[in-house]
Amino acid sequence: MARIVVIGAGMMGTACASHLVRGGHVVNLWGTELDKEIIDILKQGGEHKTLHAPVPQNIKFLQANQLEEAVNKREIVIIAIISHAVEKIVKRIVPFLRKGMIIINVAKGIPKTPYLTLCDLIEGLIPRSSDKKIPVVGMGGPARANELVRGIYTEVIFGGKNKKYAEYCSEITRNSQLKTNATCDITGVELCAAMKNSYAIAVGMCQGLSERLKKSMDNTKSAFVAQAIMEMAKLIVPQGGKLETIMGPAGIGDLYVTVQGGRNGFLGKLLGRGTTIKKAMEEMKDQTIEGYPATKDIYRLAKELEKRSKLIIKKDLPLFKQLYAVLYEGKSAQKAIKNYWKINSKDIYTTN
Amino acid sequence: MARIVVIGAGMMGTACASHLVRGGHVVNLWGTELDKEIIDILKQGGEHKTLHAPVPQNIKFLQANQLEEAVNKREIVIIAIISHAVEKIVKRIVPFLRKGMIIINVAKGIPKTPYLTLCDLIEGLIPRSSDKKIPVVGMGGPARANELVRGIYTEVIFGGKNKKYAEYCSEITRNSQLKTNATCDITGVELCAAMKNSYAIAVGMCQGLSERLKKSMDNTKSAFVAQAIMEMAKLIVPQGGKLETIMGPAGIGDLYVTVQGGRNGFLGKLLGRGTTIKKAMEEMKDQTIEGYPATKDIYRLAKELEKRSKLIIKKDLPLFKQLYAVLYEGKSAQKAIKNYWKINSKDIYTTN
Repeated sequence: MARIVVIGAGMMGTACASHLVRGGHVVNLWGTELDKEIIDILKQGGEHKTLHAPVPQNIKFLQANQLEEAVNKREIVIIAIISHAVEKIVKRIVPFLRKGMIIINVAKGIPKTPYLTLCDLIEGLIPRSSDKKIPVVGMGGPARANELVRGIYTEVIFGGKNKKYAEYCSEITRNSQLKTNATCDITGVELCAAMKNSYAIAVGMCQGLSERLKKSMDNTKSAFVAQAIMEMAKLIVPQGGKLETIMGPAGIGDLYVTVQGGRNGFLGKLLGRGTTIKKAMEEMKDQTIEGYPATKDIYRLAKELEKRSKLIIKKDLPLFKQLYAVLYEGKSAQKAIKNYWKINSKDIYTTN
Repeated sequence: MARIVVIGAGMMGTACASHLVRGGHVVNLWGTELDKEIIDILKQGGEHKTLHAPVPQNIKFLQANQLEEAVNKREIVIIAIISHAVEKIVKRIVPFLRKGMIIINVAKGIPKTPYLTLCDLIEGLIPRSSDKKIPVVGMGGPARANELVRGIYTEVIFGGKNKKYAEYCSEITRNSQLKTNATCDITGVELCAAMKNSYAIAVGMCQGLSERLKKSMDNTKSAFVAQAIMEMAKLIVPQGGKLETIMGPAGIGDLYVTVQGGRNGFLGKLLGRGTTIKKAMEEMKDQTIEGYPATKDIYRLAKELEKRSKLIIKKDLPLFKQLYAVLYEGKSAQKAIKNYWKINSKDIYTTN
């Protein structure tokens, strides 16, 4: 049994809290200022407004102004908020962190320079005094909140620079519905989580074009899924990530589930149907599409790697280059797909 | 321009012939005795009965008794028949093979011992006299026939022991709708093609269970897809196959497209809904389900590898073990999924 606080009462935070309290842990669920209404409803025994599922009442629900109480004496702090808010929220938590705590990052995205992953950013925000040496563990894998909260068979992977902390997270969260793995490859876990959102937009573009042309395009989508994984490897391995992470739940698994549906894929669909990026973003303006800013951030990272001769964008990330052109350079999705197919791929398989 | 014969007028053979003749090649399409009616209809300008697509009339359509004429003076012989008929049909072709020809295998399956791949089997059937040194190239990747025949963007990969033959096949088949790759990893290409059919049954089982429980199970399916790729690597790499092949169109790409639909997935669905294997096979008795015999053949191969200490089935292929139990040992799909989730996976990620 561990004392845990989940930071963020969105779908994923609430699903994690539900899973953990059912596993016998003592769980606080803290909502940000934006979660006020959700916390109010959950306290009264109501359903989570976007999860549409009952939430165990033995979770302790706390409002934004109760952060100290929420974090106090917790062994595990789970960060489950939108990626662009991680910095702001973690800064508010830092004063309440104590030695012996572990942070698990569930947010998925790419932080600002000089940080490579959200876990790096979180570590960077914690002062390096000896009493605050807090290990940060990243979580990846195909875990839709609406299924996790219902106890559907799910697999995740924890990555920690020191594998023992990832193994600890793996041990205490595992049950007969949640299969867990541990790896030291925190870089691979975190970069897969961010990159898969971008590639889900690209696969969604095929789906949209398929609807527009009224022709099934499963071959096209499948080629994109394989290319996505190959390109993720081209970017992640030079950063120290491992192929086995990309080939596992954090890479292929999470890409697969993301491609099955969701907001990133829907943005892609709109683009594939012929909507301009400007109009598509207007249509989805009230929704968070993590893959949109992630594509810009990953492109920046790829440019840096190119400068350091670690990859060649044109050759190693041809699909990503087309996606970037659609999202940020006004290219149509149909033209991007057409141009991608023109690229001579004979140089990809270099071994003989 | 090449002179090509496609052996087999099923969906894939006819789609290949259509693609190639549109690319300016001179193409014969030869039907087996079972294809008699198809060839008759195609000759009269009719639609292929299962492709439901118009077929170019500048293909030369030939009946079973015209094999010599079909193969005579061809530079490329494409084997596009059901895997269990490959041996019988190739034996009939051998007398007509001449030096300078290349065979491309499009069939997907596992041959009998002592052959590892269908390409090995085909090579083994050709007498080793100097005038019959015929290179064999395998084709993989996510290429549904009904989309290929319509010119939908598709990507494939050719594998040849000597990469120059794979590159030749790649060069002459490529066009603006078909992206092609070449690799020397013929083992990886061929084993991926066979194994993906088995794993598509496993993913189908999740879909069937999801329908039965009336609950979405995308997390479960996604975990299976990732596990499938990891297990494919565990079996293929000790045979000399390459990770890059498994991560590309032949592995992830072909698995993805197969999971999207088709007979293997449908068998899995029936099992997941609670149908016994006996009843499911009865229900599908007129259809070829390549993944069903492939699972037995792959299990035999895995057992051989285990004897040679190349892998441990229980540890390295836990999902495949459960699938085998459902298909050949009377285990229910639901119990197999449940048992799979109980397996402690902490040993998979060994690096630190």
